[in-house]
Amino acid sequence: MLDSCTFSGFRRIIFATLMAVSVSISAQDDLVWNVPDADNTVYLQLQEGTVVIELNPTFAPKTVEHFKKLLEEQFYRGMSFYRVIDGFVAQGGDESDIDGSSTKTLKAEFEISWPLKPKDKEEAKDWLPMSWTAVQKDDMFAPYTGFIDGFPAARDKKKAGKVWLTHCPGTVAMARNNDPDSSGTDFYIVIGQAPRYLDRNLTVFGRVVWGMDVVQRIKRGPTLKNGIIEEDLKRTWIKRMRLASTLEQDEQLDIWVADTNNRGFKKYLQERRNRSHKFFHHKPPRVLDICQVPVPARLEKNPS
Amino acid sequence: MLDSCTFSGFRRIIFATLMAVSVSISAQDDLVWNVPDADNTVYLQLQEGTVVIELNPTFAPKTVEHFKKLLEEQFYRGMSFYRVIDGFVAQGGDESDIDGSSTKTLKAEFEISWPLKPKDKEEAKDWLPMSWTAVQKDDMFAPYTGFIDGFPAARDKKKAGKVWLTHCPGTVAMARNNDPDSSGTDFYIVIGQAPRYLDRNLTVFGRVVWGMDVVQRIKRGPTLKNGIIEEDLKRTWIKRMRLASTLEQDEQLDIWVADTNNRGFKKYLQERRNRSHKFFHHKPPRVLDICQVPVPARLEKNPS
Repeated sequence: MLDSCTFSGFRRIIFATLMAVSVSISAQDDLVWNVPDADNTVYLQLQEGTVVIELNPTFAPKTVEHFKKLLEEQFYRGMSFYRVIDGFVAQGGDESDIDGSSTKTLKAEFEISWPLKPKDKEEAKDWLPMSWTAVQKDDMFAPYTGFIDGFPAARDKKKAGKVWLTHCPGTVAMARNNDPDSSGTDFYIVIGQAPRYLDRNLTVFGRVVWGMDVVQRIKRGPTLKNGIIEEDLKRTWIKRMRLASTLEQDEQLDIWVADTNNRGFKKYLQERRNRSHKFFHHKPPRVLDICQVPVPARLEKNPS
Repeated sequence: MLDSCTFSGFRRIIFATLMAVSVSISAQDDLVWNVPDADNTVYLQLQEGTVVIELNPTFAPKTVEHFKKLLEEQFYRGMSFYRVIDGFVAQGGDESDIDGSSTKTLKAEFEISWPLKPKDKEEAKDWLPMSWTAVQKDDMFAPYTGFIDGFPAARDKKKAGKVWLTHCPGTVAMARNNDPDSSGTDFYIVIGQAPRYLDRNLTVFGRVVWGMDVVQRIKRGPTLKNGIIEEDLKRTWIKRMRLASTLEQDEQLDIWVADTNNRGFKKYLQERRNRSHKFFHHKPPRVLDICQVPVPARLEKNPS
């Protein structure tokens, strides 16, 4: 038990494994919370509840633009998650990726070049460097991992090298065919241990900021049949999928997401990296898996 | 589309991302399937379905013995998952870890020594070396990872060093307090990105071989309150938890699990490590995350 560890209005006795894991109280106090931009926030409504997805137009501008058009058309309404493999991904859409019928194909947006300060003085004046909160050097899959405005990311070693969003639980990306430029309408959400080998091979364009518990309730298909769910009744259906900014104020959820550029978040990372609590009989290596660092989020109240 | 890729009795057109991920047909054909030992197989029955857990008496003999006694007493019947953090663990039991009231404390079984051949000739005669199917050298958390009879594991560099079961999705372990020897009755199942920093710090004594989709439906608690679910109605309850060998034959599930010591499984590992398919626009690093290697399992038929 950790007597030093208290929550206001919450039972005082907390067992040790918790501490090992969660946002410690001090770090939690230091976090800075942001409201996601409603124009880049998607509400995916399922029977099981609502999932909130933050889009990333910095890394996938064309895909995000295209996706927003689809939302405007209510394209996904009444579609389903037709391919769901537990521990891997839940894939939804119109199944055009299966029969190759997709006509709305998109150019790959797998990675971007690390943005350097423009040489032109006029252009450089308003220029802001890309935020980068370092997490790990040399994880198995990339030379560097870190957070960019809440999104888990990785980059290579060159100063003007590439940077990409990583496949972690909650990552939202476009499905595709063998052709890198063949994404159409079908998307997937990562629901299991990070399939990092997919990094730089698919267009990641969003992340789940709220409702992963809802995502985890999406009905699975048979793993040995690649997760395809043949029977309609065994699928999870999309009731609606809409951009938050197109909804009335009272329909919007009051979601707050921790700022990953802030000092409080860096402290939180440091505490996770350096497990100094007496609970740790065997001191863990001082490393962090970028996909094992949840970005805290909270829902203040449900809409009236 | 992969025309070369066919499933008997299944639609021929399979999109490429699938291939990237699943057991390829050839590797699948080469797998050897085992029936788990009914005397070390647990059926955890929830409202949402049945979860099958394989116990590991090699790594946690005392804990497994103790756990089997609890099952015999029907100890967990009517208890609940009272602390559930999405992306981390679902913890169940009588909550004695919260109030420190647990009287049935257990010695830690965090790791074992790598078993060496006995020097005594007589003893050495019947001795079998520990199986080890290598997965990765120098992942972030251990010098070596590999499978031991289906279980994800890790070891250190010494010849007669330590070996331990790793925290991967589906890992089942005993909760405890600060004292390493304080496990009692409460256990947890890992439901998210592998919390490998817990390795060698808790007694891992089992793994889910079937029904992770059911585990993923266990109701979550509030992450920022350490996952504790205060209201009974918001919890997932354990209907029954029993050892398979204590059930009638027709109540037992016909589960088959891939043998990880076999050549077919090694081929499957090799295919996952070396992604040579043309889908991969960017060739992934030739590494494997031990927790991102699902051990295939299949259910032949439900009990009559």
